[in-house]
Amino acid sequence: MTRFALTVEYDGRPFMGWQRQAHGPSVQQALEEAARALTGETVAVHAAGRTDAGVHALAMRAHCDIAKPIAPFRLMEALNALLRPAPVAVLACQVVADDWHARFSCLGRSYEYRIVNRRAPLTFERGLAWQVPQPLDAEAMAAGAALLVGRHDFTTFRSAHCQADSPVRTLDRLAVIRDADMIVVEAAARSFLHHQVRSMVGCLALVGMGRWSPDEVGAALAARDRARLGLNAPPDGLFFTGATYP
Amino acid sequence: MTRFALTVEYDGRPFMGWQRQAHGPSVQQALEEAARALTGETVAVHAAGRTDAGVHALAMRAHCDIAKPIAPFRLMEALNALLRPAPVAVLACQVVADDWHARFSCLGRSYEYRIVNRRAPLTFERGLAWQVPQPLDAEAMAAGAALLVGRHDFTTFRSAHCQADSPVRTLDRLAVIRDADMIVVEAAARSFLHHQVRSMVGCLALVGMGRWSPDEVGAALAARDRARLGLNAPPDGLFFTGATYP
Repeated sequence: MTRFALTVEYDGRPFMGWQRQAHGPSVQQALEEAARALTGETVAVHAAGRTDAGVHALAMRAHCDIAKPIAPFRLMEALNALLRPAPVAVLACQVVADDWHARFSCLGRSYEYRIVNRRAPLTFERGLAWQVPQPLDAEAMAAGAALLVGRHDFTTFRSAHCQADSPVRTLDRLAVIRDADMIVVEAAARSFLHHQVRSMVGCLALVGMGRWSPDEVGAALAARDRARLGLNAPPDGLFFTGATYP
Repeated sequence: MTRFALTVEYDGRPFMGWQRQAHGPSVQQALEEAARALTGETVAVHAAGRTDAGVHALAMRAHCDIAKPIAPFRLMEALNALLRPAPVAVLACQVVADDWHARFSCLGRSYEYRIVNRRAPLTFERGLAWQVPQPLDAEAMAAGAALLVGRHDFTTFRSAHCQADSPVRTLDRLAVIRDADMIVVEAAARSFLHHQVRSMVGCLALVGMGRWSPDEVGAALAARDRARLGLNAPPDGLFFTGATYP
């Protein structure tokens, strides 16, 4: 058996998310079926993060074990050919040690969340960004974001379906960057709770609209109460952008 | 009658191009039908440039005359509501003088052409960029591009269907900019011949692949012979990015 690490890009629009589901297509299933078609083996593909339905990845990291002798470049090319026409592409492939694990070896994950702040409907970015028609104050959003950085109990920003043992996470970075009508929220942490990025972005949008003061983000955090969540942002704008390893 | 200038964004993938066609949907038809549904009038919409099938616009400029009294902001909002679900959005709308013409008053047009230079298939950018798997040398491409800037007879880079009176154009700018695996070719001129940008980009790609030297671009130009065209780039990567007026 050889363990391969993969870097995978996918457009989440047609998928029920990363993880295999009985009721619809998933990115994991697309990759596993391509690997099976290539090797004849039942291949399990594990990812650094299990993105939700409609969430995208620019550089998801994953791994799989394959018995058939194959060079990493050939594996990448063959998977890409077999994945068509699904909007999933293997960008890189390398051999790693047998104990390298895309999820458990991961030291840090990053996401970006894209908001298009304009009245006109989306064309190219439909399903790839959250359109917010009200003018957003990105500086106020950044002031609110600064209150979330650090080690906190993020219960307010955690889905009811979150399976993590603890609601405590260390948020290393939460930056709000405006470029014309695009606002990007960049988030980095060792790991995130379920819906944490979307929940944080939803509350920051309320700040941007002027419906919350930046301090109300801090108060919502301190409350440690899901009922204090102002707004959960839709999946459309969320992109998994990278994972770091030792 | 009031003349309105529009700034329009559209994803060209589902369209036969800007101009009305008997055999399929066009951007012009989508806008004219929305304007007619709103006003009950037969409205003609004229654009700065008539993009081909599969070509996109970030900021096409256009105009139309409407008799029904309506404020520009209301017109924009109503057109956007009526255009759904077509991937066409009116980004701006203003009242202009009766002699302002989106095409004939235009002093300059700009395009960008997006190449994704990687082996992996496209996901998000499918139909929105030209995927070139061979490594491209963007510096060599820029050297070739420099030979096309200025006033020249662009017969080599002109479609057989081009209806312009003269093949002479003044190319004000042709820049090649690489950012990671994305190469963008930016072009600006008072006006362009039919297929001129795609034809220039096709030849620059041959230079990037090392199949042509930069000087061969200059030789192809000097030949004034369509048969000397190396390659016409596909429509996917072409975006109309703006028009300037007095």
